[in-house]
Amino acid sequence: MKSDIEIAQETTLKPINEIATSLGLVEEDWEPYGRTKAKLSANLQEKLEHRPDGKVILVTSINPTPAGEGKSTVTVGLGQALNKLGKKAIIALREPSLGPVMGLKGGAAGGGYSQVLPMEDINLHFTGDLHAITAANNALSALIDNHIHRGNKLQIDPRRVEWNRVLDMNDRALRQVVVGLGGPARGVPREDSFSITVASEIMAVLCLAKDLHDLKRRLKSIVIGYTYDEDPVTVEDLEAEGALTVLLKEALRPNLVQTTENTPAIIHGGPFANIAHGCNSIIATSSAAKLGDYVVTEAGFGADLGAEKFLNIKSRAGKIQPRAVVIVATIRALKMHGGVKKSELKEENVEAISTGVANLEKHIETIKSFGLPFVVAINKFPTDTQNEIDFLKEWCTNNKVEVALTDVWQNGGAGGLELAEKVVKAADEPTADFKHTYSLEDPLEEKIRKIAQTVYGANDIVLSKKASNQISYFEKQGWGNLPVCMAKTQYALSDDPTQIGRPTGFTIQIRELRASIGAGFIVVLTGDVLTMPGLPQHPAALNMDVTDDGRIAGLF
Amino acid sequence: MKSDIEIAQETTLKPINEIATSLGLVEEDWEPYGRTKAKLSANLQEKLEHRPDGKVILVTSINPTPAGEGKSTVTVGLGQALNKLGKKAIIALREPSLGPVMGLKGGAAGGGYSQVLPMEDINLHFTGDLHAITAANNALSALIDNHIHRGNKLQIDPRRVEWNRVLDMNDRALRQVVVGLGGPARGVPREDSFSITVASEIMAVLCLAKDLHDLKRRLKSIVIGYTYDEDPVTVEDLEAEGALTVLLKEALRPNLVQTTENTPAIIHGGPFANIAHGCNSIIATSSAAKLGDYVVTEAGFGADLGAEKFLNIKSRAGKIQPRAVVIVATIRALKMHGGVKKSELKEENVEAISTGVANLEKHIETIKSFGLPFVVAINKFPTDTQNEIDFLKEWCTNNKVEVALTDVWQNGGAGGLELAEKVVKAADEPTADFKHTYSLEDPLEEKIRKIAQTVYGANDIVLSKKASNQISYFEKQGWGNLPVCMAKTQYALSDDPTQIGRPTGFTIQIRELRASIGAGFIVVLTGDVLTMPGLPQHPAALNMDVTDDGRIAGLF
Repeated sequence: MKSDIEIAQETTLKPINEIATSLGLVEEDWEPYGRTKAKLSANLQEKLEHRPDGKVILVTSINPTPAGEGKSTVTVGLGQALNKLGKKAIIALREPSLGPVMGLKGGAAGGGYSQVLPMEDINLHFTGDLHAITAANNALSALIDNHIHRGNKLQIDPRRVEWNRVLDMNDRALRQVVVGLGGPARGVPREDSFSITVASEIMAVLCLAKDLHDLKRRLKSIVIGYTYDEDPVTVEDLEAEGALTVLLKEALRPNLVQTTENTPAIIHGGPFANIAHGCNSIIATSSAAKLGDYVVTEAGFGADLGAEKFLNIKSRAGKIQPRAVVIVATIRALKMHGGVKKSELKEENVEAISTGVANLEKHIETIKSFGLPFVVAINKFPTDTQNEIDFLKEWCTNNKVEVALTDVWQNGGAGGLELAEKVVKAADEPTADFKHTYSLEDPLEEKIRKIAQTVYGANDIVLSKKASNQISYFEKQGWGNLPVCMAKTQYALSDDPTQIGRPTGFTIQIRELRASIGAGFIVVLTGDVLTMPGLPQHPAALNMDVTDDGRIAGLF
Repeated sequence: MKSDIEIAQETTLKPINEIATSLGLVEEDWEPYGRTKAKLSANLQEKLEHRPDGKVILVTSINPTPAGEGKSTVTVGLGQALNKLGKKAIIALREPSLGPVMGLKGGAAGGGYSQVLPMEDINLHFTGDLHAITAANNALSALIDNHIHRGNKLQIDPRRVEWNRVLDMNDRALRQVVVGLGGPARGVPREDSFSITVASEIMAVLCLAKDLHDLKRRLKSIVIGYTYDEDPVTVEDLEAEGALTVLLKEALRPNLVQTTENTPAIIHGGPFANIAHGCNSIIATSSAAKLGDYVVTEAGFGADLGAEKFLNIKSRAGKIQPRAVVIVATIRALKMHGGVKKSELKEENVEAISTGVANLEKHIETIKSFGLPFVVAINKFPTDTQNEIDFLKEWCTNNKVEVALTDVWQNGGAGGLELAEKVVKAADEPTADFKHTYSLEDPLEEKIRKIAQTVYGANDIVLSKKASNQISYFEKQGWGNLPVCMAKTQYALSDDPTQIGRPTGFTIQIRELRASIGAGFIVVLTGDVLTMPGLPQHPAALNMDVTDDGRIAGLF
């Protein structure tokens, strides 16, 4: 079997101007970055404002397992399949982060014959958006420490600086550091930490901004920490929003590429799906909707995190409402949810599926709670047996759920035609029933409870003393009307990653809150959330090389 | 008077394909990055190998002062002037670092009507080369700490890790840090520091590499620290050279832009001029030489640092020999070297010039010691008086030195015609006399002594105990045949920045050495060298903004 990078390097890409032209774009609407990548112009959205919106299709999944679900691959494959049906479809994906590429084998550009290309560029520096976010984030850090060092007019409490530095690297040694050591010439010593770039609030800001003006407005309102009197300190207080906007100006423009079958794809932004909302940018999704009849886009992790946040946060900020949802499941992953070990996944086990399918069942209920039509996509793996597939299909039929088997890794768009047909049908249904999980007027505690009960299936929530105090403080600051952004393990519906399948009778422990005022949401932490990954025993980086003829090898 | 950014934004740029075509390049030779920037293809050098080399003109200066010398501006102006004379000239410059752009007002893209454009892009993220270097540097750091954390098979002594992290930001709080805090899950605590990206050895490696193959070879041989037994540990020992090459593959390709008068300019690489060699890349200079009849390039700081290193390090590594040197001086700076305070520079003071000119005199002697023809360029400022200019011209005539007054900030190429004519004449002279300051076979101590005596005018050098021990250790490792890279204050010929003008009777104190084996030189530190700048009381960042119509304001 060929590897992703081998398939990618054998694919003939169209020049990006052909892709742009196929979307009806003229030269002023885009700028090339190399011959097969482009950035859309800053004013394209404004120019297309009068056009009707294409239908947004949201791809989500069951809770991820080590078996793999292939959500990005199905997203790309579905877009290609829609094109094969004669629809004008565009794919809208997140930008991969460099850190995990160096760490564990596996990127975020789809796979097999359903990839976005050039995959090497997309997985490495691409058009520099993440580097720009790193620079902006760390410029702000430098300005904060410089302010404290030079008299601290704002009376920032160095113990209460919430803004940390970032690097786009898996680097565990930077999780907890002390900066400013070495005497008066080297600033004021304080504890700090580095997160990975995609965890920067600036990433969330960029992805939720409607335009350059909105970007600056959001940057301004970022709370970087608190004074000795425990008042919030903002970017505006530091007068830094202009410089940050300058650094992010180009990164705000979405990137245009193509898939293995030359279907247009817009790849832009990629916030964490725990401490942030885990979706590509509003500008990218909105632009794609103006350029295509269908936009296929995905949200991070399972439906309990990514889809919930897409539908409660991104949907509100960008006035984007999906017309249909695809829930990706695999036989392998359902077996794991049914208790099978990874080493035994190759053996047929219908009974395990009959238990594990409860995880899928809960996510179906969640999507129903939003009032949206949906299709279950079974993403086929070579080890799946006919009995297993038949069981899952029958389960869907018995539960009156539309289901389609897809084989897009192996067959590209041709492997997703059934799914595409069912998605088109679903997207034609009326969506008058669309509703959010909570109202913005609900108190913060009530919002959290509604998500825990409706989306996770919990009995209730339990607030720590700290979380309780923070809710009072945040509501006093006028932040009570913001949506909440749940940071929970992606591996389970509850806050305990070992509770696979469909746990019941549990409560969600709320440990702590964080104010992401620029992004426009309150982050709610359940348990420990790691915002800086580490490298494994044998990092993927050690397999990489450039061949003598200049090709990248060992990337995947 | 208009600002640099105002002049830049009023200039009509040619599409980059026109610039490329004017150089005889076809589509496969370059890739666009936006409409006015391009990267040259990786195999262009190979393709042009058979062509004769154009003449390389090296622009250097007297010791820098707060009055400003305008070396980059003269470099750009001279290239434009050569084109006005009907010569096919290309400019080869360094890439600016983002940190200082955010810190102090002033970029590194020339000024007035002698700028490289688009100056906003060039001074911000440009084509991402510096970001790629940051990523590669910090990937190596993460791999080192991960290796130590996971059993430390190579027995790296955490107290002797010489490889530090970098950010392209002026951030004093990162000068001295402790990483790996927080218990066993967060690695092994150790002291570390962050330098600014341009101080990374990877920047020097990229700038001295002849091609991708040479890049990987140099990366391999980087010494990242020492074992408990004090043996060197290399990137090859860590098996990381493949990943670093993957990360740097695109950054190795030179960038093509244009000047305010549409003269082609290749901008690529920008290593520190103290702990590194301070010149743009060998690939850029060599490619430019294949594409033009004249290449105008510059080296960092004054002739005692930048030109010395160009002629002893870059010249050897790249087999590049300048045909003529331009020594830039200003009336203002010579007055400062004559003892005038910055606040009194506007007043005529011929006597101060008659003292300060001794600084110029020493640099002239230095260039003569290399056996190269040269021209002194007086870079005109509005406050210069006729008496002052006459004095300096007469001094040159009396000393049989070719001199030309230039006014390229105000008048572009037209302000540099006299200089261009004299440079063309100088470059026609035979250069059989070219010689380096030292032989590679000289012991390290002798190399340092020869530079100190010939280039700085010192009586002798004084080695610290540490430096002495390091020389023995380095020579035992087989590193004794490498060139040396002096890290000395740029403000004076001696190692004391207050000794302006032309100090005599001094010795150079050698504090410490560092092994930059990948770059291929031994760094020699005289006094403290800061590799991470700080932000000033009022950082330039605070003046920056993006206007409602999307233009960058307040950058300069």
